[in-house]
Amino acid sequence: MTVIDVDDPDDARVDDFRDLNSVDRRPDLPALPGGRVGKGLVIAEGVLVAQRMIASRFAPHAFLGVDKRLRELAGDLRGTELAGVPFYRASADVMAQVVGFHLNRGVLAVARRPQRLALSDVLAGARTVAVLEGVNDHENIGSIFRNAAGLGIDAVLFGAGCADPLYRRCVRVSMGHALLVPSAAFDDWPDGLDILHDNGFQTVSLTPEVSSPALAQALTDPVTEAPREKVAFLVGAEGPGLTRAVMRASHVRARIPMSRGTDSLNVATAAAIAFYERARTL
Amino acid sequence: MTVIDVDDPDDARVDDFRDLNSVDRRPDLPALPGGRVGKGLVIAEGVLVAQRMIASRFAPHAFLGVDKRLRELAGDLRGTELAGVPFYRASADVMAQVVGFHLNRGVLAVARRPQRLALSDVLAGARTVAVLEGVNDHENIGSIFRNAAGLGIDAVLFGAGCADPLYRRCVRVSMGHALLVPSAAFDDWPDGLDILHDNGFQTVSLTPEVSSPALAQALTDPVTEAPREKVAFLVGAEGPGLTRAVMRASHVRARIPMSRGTDSLNVATAAAIAFYERARTL
Repeated sequence: MTVIDVDDPDDARVDDFRDLNSVDRRPDLPALPGGRVGKGLVIAEGVLVAQRMIASRFAPHAFLGVDKRLRELAGDLRGTELAGVPFYRASADVMAQVVGFHLNRGVLAVARRPQRLALSDVLAGARTVAVLEGVNDHENIGSIFRNAAGLGIDAVLFGAGCADPLYRRCVRVSMGHALLVPSAAFDDWPDGLDILHDNGFQTVSLTPEVSSPALAQALTDPVTEAPREKVAFLVGAEGPGLTRAVMRASHVRARIPMSRGTDSLNVATAAAIAFYERARTL
Repeated sequence: MTVIDVDDPDDARVDDFRDLNSVDRRPDLPALPGGRVGKGLVIAEGVLVAQRMIASRFAPHAFLGVDKRLRELAGDLRGTELAGVPFYRASADVMAQVVGFHLNRGVLAVARRPQRLALSDVLAGARTVAVLEGVNDHENIGSIFRNAAGLGIDAVLFGAGCADPLYRRCVRVSMGHALLVPSAAFDDWPDGLDILHDNGFQTVSLTPEVSSPALAQALTDPVTEAPREKVAFLVGAEGPGLTRAVMRASHVRARIPMSRGTDSLNVATAAAIAFYERARTL
């Protein structure tokens, strides 16, 4: 890395890290067509997440951090094509003034958002995928990526109404897996679900409806009892759940058996249980 | 309810709701022997959680809320022994000044902490319990209570090093189930685990160690393949996990099969998967 000391919080060279908590000015807002809104950057926070960004297709073009974290990351970049990337070294105080709050993880990496992956590319070779509709909470999306990585899910796909999966908080909660687990978005929703059907996926809508079959049952062929070759789990936001249109478009509904009188589980927890059940059948 | 309008944020009658975000003055800090630290209160936030408090052994002795929430809760108290409890009705602004921040759920209920349940009472009749060690994150504890309620766990027990399960944030994340799911603490740790063994529980330490048997295997008798009659899941904090002493004291270790190169799951997510697997075998 090229180490550059930064003493002035107004230094324009660290503008990509400025005002990260600003609702309308943060640099990691998506760039919209016509150059509107954000800079379209992605921010990784902390050594572990920065390391995962380095290992991902999101190539960081700059770091901002304290000296201690510089030492921890130096080895990850040595001899790679990122070896010349600037590391803006600053005190914790200067960092806090740039970023807008005290950042206890001590280092940030920033990358430009690469082109989104094509759905067809992400599906090629995938055996189990998660499909999200209306999941508008960054922490839930981050948790779903983390659970997907841990429990063998090949891709996370986005239908309508979801929050930005590349927002800093989502990337952090995912432990960086939002940058590593293949991900794509549907252009048409819910009509695009046909792409899953055309590719041989059994689409399974997760629902708390007690009339739906239990999860385990939905994942095996009723005749041969063999596990389904390809499975796509569809999950909706806590509260409203999946829309009727998506439920109707899917092959089957499935529920996690729940105690009476309780709320449904958190969406990321329900997804984790579905991922576990799938891993269990394979 | 006895409705009392409060216009003055300094009104001493609402002191039990004052400065809820204060680290050292909030009224829901536990009271320690000798009258030190907090008032030993428990705060429920929002209509749903307040309703669960009303249904629990934590009898609220006052409410603070806006008129809309008063109407929503009135029916829950009518004809009960709580019918005369004061409801301090205030504007959202006055509430915010009392509480110390804007509370978008619009109502709070407060109760004194009743005597803790005895471990032996909580274990009587229980078939599956969760035991926490070193879980010091309120949101994780809240999620564990919510998952316990949803997935048929009979009690949540506390070993050493855990955060206060009756802190407002924990109660809120649990959706009020922290007040409803029976809960007790061990006096001796980890020696107190003997109480579980004496009561016929199979103690199962959850661990990401790849050499440990898979979860499903640990929950059935290896000879008869019948589900274990009574199971206690032991879970430790994210990162450090369970202490060696607890692992050694338990009957078996068990792991959730994970993909290579990933972190272990969040502790509440891992617990939810264990609870699900247990429900699956019963």
